[in-house]
Amino acid sequence: MEIEVLEGVFDANEMIAKENRALLEEAGTFMINLMASPGAGKTSVITKTLEGVRGTLSSGVIEGDIAGKVDAERIAALGIPAVQINTGGSCHLEARQINGALLKLDLSALDLVIVENVGNLVCPAEFKLGEDLKVMILSVAEGHDKPLKYPLMFSESDVLIVNKIDLIPYTDFDMKALLETVGKMNPDAEIFELSCRTGEGVEAWTDWLKKKVAGS
Amino acid sequence: MEIEVLEGVFDANEMIAKENRALLEEAGTFMINLMASPGAGKTSVITKTLEGVRGTLSSGVIEGDIAGKVDAERIAALGIPAVQINTGGSCHLEARQINGALLKLDLSALDLVIVENVGNLVCPAEFKLGEDLKVMILSVAEGHDKPLKYPLMFSESDVLIVNKIDLIPYTDFDMKALLETVGKMNPDAEIFELSCRTGEGVEAWTDWLKKKVAGS
Repeated sequence: MEIEVLEGVFDANEMIAKENRALLEEAGTFMINLMASPGAGKTSVITKTLEGVRGTLSSGVIEGDIAGKVDAERIAALGIPAVQINTGGSCHLEARQINGALLKLDLSALDLVIVENVGNLVCPAEFKLGEDLKVMILSVAEGHDKPLKYPLMFSESDVLIVNKIDLIPYTDFDMKALLETVGKMNPDAEIFELSCRTGEGVEAWTDWLKKKVAGS
Repeated sequence: MEIEVLEGVFDANEMIAKENRALLEEAGTFMINLMASPGAGKTSVITKTLEGVRGTLSSGVIEGDIAGKVDAERIAALGIPAVQINTGGSCHLEARQINGALLKLDLSALDLVIVENVGNLVCPAEFKLGEDLKVMILSVAEGHDKPLKYPLMFSESDVLIVNKIDLIPYTDFDMKALLETVGKMNPDAEIFELSCRTGEGVEAWTDWLKKKVAGS
């Protein structure tokens, strides 16, 4: 009984995710679903990405939060179109919320939309939004053992950004162990090691992204 | 319709949480529900707590993870009774899972049971387990702005442990700002600033806990 209800939820979500894809393809807009734990650096990765693609891609942002609009205001202050979604307690974004947000953006003027999902390493992985790319961030401070504990997120993501590498000297983080585990779970994942704080490694990610959007 | 289903889930959970309380009270066992984001240091806080109360309290641990049993093995290696719950994809523990785990432990021999919830700053806050104390951990690396984004967890918790304070010099973490925000949202919360890595501040927490358990 419980499983049936859940399947119904996923089916309905997938139908709307397909609608979102049609909207995006018609407009020629590339959409990223950015997922991570609270405090892994989602908003920082977004602002660094916006800086890095500026001049090449015109971007918009959809901010998903349980409450508040700090993030959307921070993005809008950069002159970037931003829509805030408040989930009102729910721990992930669903396709119908993205649908509403996409209709508020002028998609025909945008090459790239970055969706900042709710900070959660579990549930967001289960809900397709109609994205071109699932990108997850792992912060060095979270530890290299996370893939085994949150396997769905690590195996579903197309890109893994390892953020806060400037903290490596002050932690027990083992990059080699992380790469080995992820390599087994998700051998096709693109992996970028960077620090939004120092800027190290950011360009490799934004250069790759620009090529990816151009080729889509 | 959706709301009714959810209320049903919460009601059923609360009923079993009350059963858990009765079990614990009969045995004279104090139970902590420990919640945090992935990688905030739940397992490290548990091992430090077990060390700190050793000789005064006899303890057991219930480990909640989506998959795997690394944590329970790590605890059992310390000679502490440990039960592993695998949620099989679900992002939080529920009272019925704790009920099953409590029945596997010899409660009459235990003063303290620590439950390690699934790494998630959202959903675990909504499900009572029958605990005496809700304890949450925020890692310095997650940032001081988290209470506004995950308000339920910060306002529901009886204790806030700010972990990894050894990283403060290498981050933009503002302890004063955090304490101000939490002070407004949850003025009764007990707050402990510590580092499991260096040991700084751990004793203040375990001393407080020992008194709390003795007075319960």
